[in-house]
Amino acid sequence: MARITSIEPGFYRIPLPEVLTDSMHGEMRAFELNTVRLRDADGAEGVGYTFTVGRNGAAIDAVLTREFPEIMAGEEADHIERLWQKAWWATHYGGRGGPTVLALSAFDMALWDLKSKRAGLPLWNYLGGFDPKVPCYAGGIDLDLPLDKLLKQTDGNLAKGFRAIKMKVGRKRLSEDVARVKAMREHLGEGFPLMVDANMKWTVDEAIRAARAFQPYDLTWVEEPTIPDDPAGHARIVREGGLPIAVGENLRTHWEFKQYIAMGAVTYPEPDVTNCGGVTPFMKIAHLAEAFNMPVTTHGAHDVTVHLLAACPNRSFLEAHGFGLERYIAEPLAIEEGFALAPDRPGHGIDFDWAGLERIKA
Amino acid sequence: MARITSIEPGFYRIPLPEVLTDSMHGEMRAFELNTVRLRDADGAEGVGYTFTVGRNGAAIDAVLTREFPEIMAGEEADHIERLWQKAWWATHYGGRGGPTVLALSAFDMALWDLKSKRAGLPLWNYLGGFDPKVPCYAGGIDLDLPLDKLLKQTDGNLAKGFRAIKMKVGRKRLSEDVARVKAMREHLGEGFPLMVDANMKWTVDEAIRAARAFQPYDLTWVEEPTIPDDPAGHARIVREGGLPIAVGENLRTHWEFKQYIAMGAVTYPEPDVTNCGGVTPFMKIAHLAEAFNMPVTTHGAHDVTVHLLAACPNRSFLEAHGFGLERYIAEPLAIEEGFALAPDRPGHGIDFDWAGLERIKA
Ligand SMILES: [Mg+2]
Ligand SMILES: [Mg+2]
Repeated sequence: MARITSIEPGFYRIPLPEVLTDSMHGEMRAFELNTVRLRDADGAEGVGYTFTVGRNGAAIDAVLTREFPEIMAGEEADHIERLWQKAWWATHYGGRGGPTVLALSAFDMALWDLKSKRAGLPLWNYLGGFDPKVPCYAGGIDLDLPLDKLLKQTDGNLAKGFRAIKMKVGRKRLSEDVARVKAMREHLGEGFPLMVDANMKWTVDEAIRAARAFQPYDLTWVEEPTIPDDPAGHARIVREGGLPIAVGENLRTHWEFKQYIAMGAVTYPEPDVTNCGGVTPFMKIAHLAEAFNMPVTTHGAHDVTVHLLAACPNRSFLEAHGFGLERYIAEPLAIEEGFALAPDRPGHGIDFDWAGLERIKA
Repeated sequence: MARITSIEPGFYRIPLPEVLTDSMHGEMRAFELNTVRLRDADGAEGVGYTFTVGRNGAAIDAVLTREFPEIMAGEEADHIERLWQKAWWATHYGGRGGPTVLALSAFDMALWDLKSKRAGLPLWNYLGGFDPKVPCYAGGIDLDLPLDKLLKQTDGNLAKGFRAIKMKVGRKRLSEDVARVKAMREHLGEGFPLMVDANMKWTVDEAIRAARAFQPYDLTWVEEPTIPDDPAGHARIVREGGLPIAVGENLRTHWEFKQYIAMGAVTYPEPDVTNCGGVTPFMKIAHLAEAFNMPVTTHGAHDVTVHLLAACPNRSFLEAHGFGLERYIAEPLAIEEGFALAPDRPGHGIDFDWAGLERIKA
């Protein structure tokens, strides 16, 4: 037990080595990274982070700089459930979503890092411990890649050790998507796990039509077929499209996931620990999915998320996301024969290159 | 038609003349005000604003300062539906709620102010025009006021011209709430519109128990009985509590209201134009309620909201909110015999004392 003595936010803009594209966010050349470093009265440190597609980072920084130090002054770092509730309600009016929850996600992650570090345990073990070896897929952000480059990128991913791959869909014409999926299936061979991600591009009827058109190609799931504000529409897509549906990277908290899960509007819940509210709600969402006999998959921030899936018996694939931090952390996640291994270092074990980050301050 | 040439945000902390209290936010001594002043190529100006209970204002300011000028550079101010969509999707990742939507609310309000001013029409008329005389209630923020002071405050509200009053509930014991409601009913007499507001204090079962206990006192509605994240719970409260239920000051966008309205989880939808996403979604919510044969009431920001209800045939009571701006605007809303009158000045007609605000910069 020790009190929080300092909260130090950081805000960076990470350039991407190549331009990424999807159906909703267009061309992405950089992403925003917000970090938070906590220290307790014993000098122990916990680190959390969140990221954005390029906007809202300044607002996240404002919440971490202006609100959290006041809200958390003198609090006991170990009482994470209590602190989560305190932060949720202190920022509820005008919060309850958006940048406020991304800030909370980073803060909560730092608390869990600190707590498991103090216990001398890797986070995945501290959270319960299931299996440190987590199946992992390469999350391509490749909607505008010409087919030959898409297949070349795929060969690269196979060489890197991936044994499951997700590609973007949602091109102008569905026939283009179908042709690309067909080519990928032929390239990868029967039984190789292949997912597609539409990034909310379609109406409900368009999504059902697309899912049906993809049926011959044995997809593991179709991700974000339509806007996250329509659970009833998603329930129709699940029922009528005939394919598994992943949703969650744009849902916040266990409450929003509960709606989707309880009404059959998702089959692969896909929380992101950096935007669902942190490790605290992420684990509740994973357990909720388990109670509903559903697997749980993930979005983003694979270096930390590997721990969370390694703690869950119903864990499905971990996404290795295109927004990589490998240039700014000491030991990035290694992929071997389709699996990622949760590190055995205490906490989440992510050691940021703070001096390197300093040079790309936002 | 004229392009947006400047976006000027402001961020202020407004001290309250007396300490306000409710069941969730404790003691409130000040509120945050975020403003946005738009100018177009012809020199016309539009003004929008939003407020918070004391946190998230810095994040709203960050969104208005860092994101909106870039997103809106060179855009045509008249194309509000298009600009709303553009802002929604440009800020969607890490936005879609929270401070980002409050910033959008203020920006959208400024666009409607500008547009109706350019047309030379008061906003209520520009939006369709129903009846500028809007029934209005005094929204007390008075949970901790001793009963004698509550009744004295009530006499003050009657003297100010109010003919409908809302009081806070959610005290430690339900019996205290019931005694206060009973005293207020006796004080006000039979048939006087009286509402209560629990500010999300209760569980679903507690809310049902409270609603049943309030039944003898002829309440117009019970407001925010439980957390806004539980539409299914609200549907139970509507069915089993036996009283009308108002919800909305913590819901964002027509999508979230649609869930509540379509599943019978609310009977008085209560959007706040400063946090639901602006005038654009507010009017959609009001029309959605109308299609479902529901009245629409409101939360906060009465000086501008009077225009929106004055445009709607299904308008119920306007809330005159405890966070008043009367010291910082030229002609605050006047209440006469229970009605507020939407001003006949072009736009929303709110003229801020910018020099006075400058002295309370946050
Ligand atoms: Mg995705
Ligand atoms: Mg209220």
